[in-house]
This record gives sequence, structure tokens and C-alpha cells, in this order.
Amino acid sequence: MQPQRDLQGLWLLLLSLFLLLFEEARAGRPLVSCPAACLCASNILSCSKQQLPNVPHSLPSYTALLDLSHNNLSRLRAEWTPTRLTHLHSLLLSHNQLNFISSEAFSPVPNLRYLDLSSNQLRTLDEFLFSELQALEVLLLYNNHIMAVDRCAFDDVVQLQKLYLSQNQISRFPLELVKEGAKLPKLTLLDLSSNKLKNLPLPDLQKLPAWIKNGLYLHNNPLHCDCELYQLFSHWQYRQLSSVMDFQEDLYCMSSKKLHNVFSLSFLNCSEYKERAWEAHLGDTLTIKCDTKQQGMTKVWVTPSNERVLDEVANSTVTVSKDGSLHFRRVQVEDGGVYTCYAMGEAFNETLSVELKVYNFTLHGHHDTLNTAYTTLVGCILSVVLVLIYLYLTPCRCWCRGVEKPSSHQGDSLSSSMLSTTPNHDPMAGGDKDDGKGQRRMSDPESVSSVFSDTPIVV
Amino acid sequence: MQPQRDLQGLWLLLLSLFLLLFEEARAGRPLVSCPAACLCASNILSCSKQQLPNVPHSLPSYTALLDLSHNNLSRLRAEWTPTRLTHLHSLLLSHNQLNFISSEAFSPVPNLRYLDLSSNQLRTLDEFLFSELQALEVLLLYNNHIMAVDRCAFDDVVQLQKLYLSQNQISRFPLELVKEGAKLPKLTLLDLSSNKLKNLPLPDLQKLPAWIKNGLYLHNNPLHCDCELYQLFSHWQYRQLSSVMDFQEDLYCMSSKKLHNVFSLSFLNCSEYKERAWEAHLGDTLTIKCDTKQQGMTKVWVTPSNERVLDEVANSTVTVSKDGSLHFRRVQVEDGGVYTCYAMGEAFNETLSVELKVYNFTLHGHHDTLNTAYTTLVGCILSVVLVLIYLYLTPCRCWCRGVEKPSSHQGDSLSSSMLSTTPNHDPMAGGDKDDGKGQRRMSDPESVSSVFSDTPIVV
Repeated sequence: MQPQRDLQGLWLLLLSLFLLLFEEARAGRPLVSCPAACLCASNILSCSKQQLPNVPHSLPSYTALLDLSHNNLSRLRAEWTPTRLTHLHSLLLSHNQLNFISSEAFSPVPNLRYLDLSSNQLRTLDEFLFSELQALEVLLLYNNHIMAVDRCAFDDVVQLQKLYLSQNQISRFPLELVKEGAKLPKLTLLDLSSNKLKNLPLPDLQKLPAWIKNGLYLHNNPLHCDCELYQLFSHWQYRQLSSVMDFQEDLYCMSSKKLHNVFSLSFLNCSEYKERAWEAHLGDTLTIKCDTKQQGMTKVWVTPSNERVLDEVANSTVTVSKDGSLHFRRVQVEDGGVYTCYAMGEAFNETLSVELKVYNFTLHGHHDTLNTAYTTLVGCILSVVLVLIYLYLTPCRCWCRGVEKPSSHQGDSLSSSMLSTTPNHDPMAGGDKDDGKGQRRMSDPESVSSVFSDTPIVV
Repeated sequence: MQPQRDLQGLWLLLLSLFLLLFEEARAGRPLVSCPAACLCASNILSCSKQQLPNVPHSLPSYTALLDLSHNNLSRLRAEWTPTRLTHLHSLLLSHNQLNFISSEAFSPVPNLRYLDLSSNQLRTLDEFLFSELQALEVLLLYNNHIMAVDRCAFDDVVQLQKLYLSQNQISRFPLELVKEGAKLPKLTLLDLSSNKLKNLPLPDLQKLPAWIKNGLYLHNNPLHCDCELYQLFSHWQYRQLSSVMDFQEDLYCMSSKKLHNVFSLSFLNCSEYKERAWEAHLGDTLTIKCDTKQQGMTKVWVTPSNERVLDEVANSTVTVSKDGSLHFRRVQVEDGGVYTCYAMGEAFNETLSVELKVYNFTLHGHHDTLNTAYTTLVGCILSVVLVLIYLYLTPCRCWCRGVEKPSSHQGDSLSSSMLSTTPNHDPMAGGDKDDGKGQRRMSDPESVSSVFSDTPIVV
């Protein structure tokens, strides 16, 4: 038995040594380090496809990218992370079952720049949901069940550049997001494809600058077929905008419960799209924008006689303003022709041609209509004055008619006193001053009603 | 039977109508649109977790983000995409079985900015593998089996800012990537954590600017424990660099086959780290860098007497140069003290203090050592000259000693002729000129040996 006991002792010694070593190696590990379900590479935490029902607890505060895609998360509560993750710039939550996001969920991640919520079960975007994300640049919300975008959902997300809302149930076009000077001044991509949009605010969309329209994706929507829609997309096609050029075959509209490609609306007999020329009159002041597909391009304008338009020349009537627009101080007939804007950008260059038609007469001809308006106005005021004079000059029989009471001298004297600006020294009239006032007050409503009533005034 | 036939006819009619409608709805779809396995949202193609053995064919040319993560891809061949994807900026290939990437695989995606190759089976990074990716900013290669990083793998990837190489088998520190003026001038994050690094080029690492060291992650490596390593990381800890502060508990080193935390190397008896002061002498020219943790910060220097150092003042001896360094034209004793650099960045502010010690004597004092060197050199040359003179002035007995032959008058006359620069008109000497030359040649090796040998010269 002695050798067996020795062996047992040796085993115990080895085991305790092993545990000691293991403990020593483990001791150095921090408590808030890499969560068990994640793979950690310095500031990246990759916890995708781990069947996680919840966000792992105690995430390291230095986390910059957190990948939680392909899990079983269903709710993103306010307290999903107890520590503030001020370094987090990318949060990937796609391919989960998220159907609820607390309005305070994004408070602990104020510096987030990229948020992927695609392929979830979201139904609504509540007001101010993303308002804490003032550094957010890209937001992926495609493939959810979003039916309504609250008008205030994206308030304060001022840095947002790309918003993907494709493959949802949206039926209202969120114009407030793209309107110039609107909530999202930097938005260059808004994907609303594969939704339930039936009507678009066509005149508003046409007015948008090309750099917004270029990234405004509207294909695969049951839009209402009409010539205005055809004209809109034909213009975008003419301008070679990506939103139309990349998805020409997917731009549908509905007519009599059938889907039609927008560019094959022959049955509607719409007129072909033609780029219209700018029109001006002699001596007009005119500004023509170089409406490029990208923001911040360097722009150069060339005249019809192939001369470069300079930025600031004292005597020149044509100059290029700071924002790259062509500016005419006083349009001349010889200014007419095709102007070309060459725009140089980081990614690509662009050439835009604009035709200017100058009519050989000044805009003063049009002043006729304005004068007519003025004379009408003056005539109207004059007639009102005449009516008022008539009212105060009419003999008393005007109101005797209704009451059938004989006209008093008082009324006459009052009227005459009103017209003869001299003070009334008649002691009778002076004594009855209050009465006179009362009558005058009475006449006022009547005069008003006489002006506005359709009944003829019996003189 | 008549009603049954009628019903059959109606069914056939309905079926054909349905097929006709379906065909009409389908006809408009483009051929090169969304691949079957993918979810498409305008320019995003999400094809993750589809068990794809290959990249889908015919990807749309407008694709900007392609997600192929969590699939079964094993090889990325040169022809993986037949169309050039010039708009592609993000390619996600993580969680596949990639073990081969063709050296031409990235030719069709020249504008890629984000490439995720993490969690694959890659073993090597061949030379020029990423050279086509001249716009690449972030490269994720963590959790592979990479053993060697070719010195030329990242040539021309000049825009690279973040490189994650964590959780691989790398044993050589790729110094060529971080050295100043090196291949990747914009690299601010290099994650080499959880690899097999044993030795680091410590002096080179210490010389790196703080903005590189701040993102140089080296934790979880079996580094060799020594005081130099301790001093390096202690300095980084003193500077509060993220690479050390976020992973203090994970910074290990190996000693006697045991893992130790770098900051608990008490058994090595390393001296505590102390920030050293800058030392200067009266009249010195000196430049002190404001070594911030981030690039491109606005820097303000304040003197020990709390006065702001101005950028350019004609008479001032202390100025701030364009790169934010403190520049002393002629150091004075009163310049000594603690200077503070306040750096303002986008993400955070930083305050750095630098102590300057000025010795109350000029650097000319140090010229003594230089003078000694010069005098030694001059003395040496002089002694050689003296030896040569000695050799040519010595009486012939010097070489008579070895050969035991009587001294000839010829030798004497030769020596005297050398010293008396006048031409030798002695006809005897003139006739035997060749002999004299031969003797002179013989004397040379002897003179050299006499200089270098320890044997005393017998005069």
C-alpha cells in the first residue's frame, strides 16, 4: 500500500500545482474584458451568430465596433449596456428579431456613426428615437415591417448621410427628410425602394437639387401611373441619376391594378420629356445653378462662344458666384445660347449644358398687367371712399325708409357739420352732442352692411 | 356532364389569365439585378448566412456594400466577379473558410475602403496581396492562421488606418509597417494582440510617436520578460496610451516558462519608470515635440511662468513651430522649468508636461573631448611622420644589423640627398640610382614592422 499512497500524494501535488499555475495565468485577466460569447480583437467585439437572447453584460468601455448580428435579440432596452460606450462607432444588430427599441436605447452610445438595424421585426419609428445619435452617418433599416416613419423620428440626426428604408411597408413619402433646408442637411442617399408608396409629392421632388435626387431610390413601389410621374423619372433619366439609371427596369407604377414599367407608359400618351431652355428678357437679372449630382464639386462655366466665365470681373455682365452658379447682371440678346458647366468632383466629373433664350424686349411690357392691378386696386379704394361719402351725404330718407320716421334737422346738421370741418357753434346741436354720436354709431354698422350686402341700395 | 366541362373551361381560362398576369409582372425585372441568395437595398447586397460555396455570379456594377459573411467560401479567385465593382467600398467576407486569395482578387474593386477577412483559414499574406487597394482604410484579418506577414504584403496600401491582425500565429513584429516615414503613413491602429510574438524591437518602438503607440496593441503575446520591456510599457502606461491602459491585465510576458503580467515583474528588480527631463546647455538650439496621442491636434505651449509661447516673434528665443513643436533658438539658464503643451483634438484634449534642465555652461566644454580626439589623431599622424623621418634619417647601421654587412657610403649619400633637396650631382650615386631605389623599397616593410612591433628600436 505504501507505493500507492506515494502515487496518490504525487497526483495531488501535481493537481494542486496545475491549479496554482492555472490560477496564476487566470489571475491577470480583467473582469470586464471579452464577453464569453464574443471574439475580441482590441476594440472590436464580434458576437455574431451566437443565438444570444440578450446583449452580453458588461461590455468593455473601449469597444469601437460591436457586432451582434444573427442572434435572437428581440428588445433593445434602455439599460442594454450598463456602461456608456463613448468609443462605439459601429453597432451591428441586423438579422435579429428586434421588435422594440427603447427611446433611450441610444443614450449610452452618443458617438455612433454606423447603425445596422436591418432584417428585424421593427414596425414603427417613434418620435425622437434616433435623436441622441448626433454623429450618426449611416442608418440601415431595410427589411423590417416599418409602416410609419414619425415626422420627428430623425430630428437632430444632423450628420446622417445614408438612410436605407427599403423593403418595409411605408406608404407616406417622408418629404420632411429631403426638403432643402430640412432636418437632414447632409442626406445624400434615401432608399425607399420596395415599399408601399402610391403617391409622391411630385412638384416638391422635381424642385430638389440633383445631388439629393441622385440618391433617392423609389423603385419597386406601387406608384400611381400618370404623365407627371413619367415626366419626373424621364427627367432623372435624362440627367443620368443613379436612382433611376441603376433601377430602370424596377421603376413600376400601377394602373388598373396592373404593374407597368414607368418608361413604357405608351398607353397614357404622355409627351416625350424635353429639357426646357431658360427664358429671360432684356435687362433681366438671372442666376442659373450648376445642378450637379454630387455636392462640393469645382465648377467652371463656358459661354456659347467657348470662353470661360470668370469668377469676378468688374465690368462683365456674366460672372460665376461663389456657389458655382452663373450670374447675369443685365441679360442682353447676345447672351442667348448654350452654356456649359464643367464640374470636377472626387469620384467623377460632370458636364451640364443649359440653353438660355433671351427675348428681344424688356420685362417692362409685363408692367401693363401690374398697372392694371394697381388701377383696379385704386379704383376699388376710390369706390369704397365714394360709398362712404355717399353714406354720409345721403339725405335722411335713406334710414327714414326702414323706421318710417320723419327726417330731423339734427341728422342734416350732423352731416353738414362732418363735411364743413368748422366747429359746430349751433347751441342746439352742441347740447345734443351725445345723441348725435349715438346716431353716428348706429349708421356705421348699416354702412358696412350696405357695402357688403348684395341688396341694392335704394337712394 | 355539360356543367363539369364548363367548369373545367373556366378553370383553364382563369389559370391562363393568372399566368399571363404573372408573366407581365415578371417581364420588367432586370437580368443583372439582385442575386437569388441576397437581400438587396439599393446599393447594398446582403448575402450573409446562405451557405454559399461561391460568390454569386453577376453582381450589379453599382454595388457599394457586399456582405458575404457566414458562408462556405473557401477560395477567392481572381475572377470572383466578372464585372468591375468600382463603387464597392465595403466587402465583408468574415466567418468563411477562406484559405486562398488570388493576388489579383482585389483588382476589380479598386475603391474598397473596408475589407473584413476575419475568422477565416488564411495562413499567409503574400507579397503585394493588397497592393491594388490604394483606397483601403480598414483591414480586418483577426482570427485566422496567419504565420507570416510578407514585408511587401501592404505595399501601396497608403490610406490604411486600421489593421487588425489579432488572434493569429505571427511571431515576427512587422516593424516596416509602423516605422516613421514607412509604408503605411496613416496607420493609427495595429492590433497584434494574441499572437506568438516573443521579441519586440524595443528601441524602435520607444522612438515611435505617441499617436502610433496609442494604437499598437501587443497584449496576450508570449513576450520575453525583461526590464527593457517593463520600462517600455511603464512609459506607455505613464502616457495613458490606450493600447496599454485598456489591456493592462492582458499584457503578459514569459519567464522560466511561466506567464507574468508585465507590470508585476518584481522578481526582476527593474527600476521604476521615471519620465526624464530634457537636458540642454547654454546657447543650445533645441526642439521639443508635443508628442500627442492623436494626429492633427491644435497645440498651445505654456512656459514655466504660465505665459503662452507665441508662434512667431522676431526677438523671442522660444517659439512654436508649424508642427506644434517648441523651439529654442539659444537656450538660457532662465529657460529651465516645466513647459506644458495643451493639445486640442476632435475627440479629446490632452495636456503634456515637459521638464527642461539647462546646465550653466556652454556646450563648448564638451569640445574638450572632441579636441582630445583631434589631438590624438594629429599626434598619431605626427608620430607616423616622425617614424618615417626617423626611417629615412637613421644611419645605415640600422639595417646593417640584420645582414651584418658594412655600411656603404651610398646609403648615406642617398639619405643626405633626400634631406638636402638639392639634386645629387655625384656621378657615382647617379650611376647606381636603381640600386638605391631597391634598397629604399626594402626598408619600407621593416619600418612598418618597427612601428607596430613591440621590440625596441635599436638606434
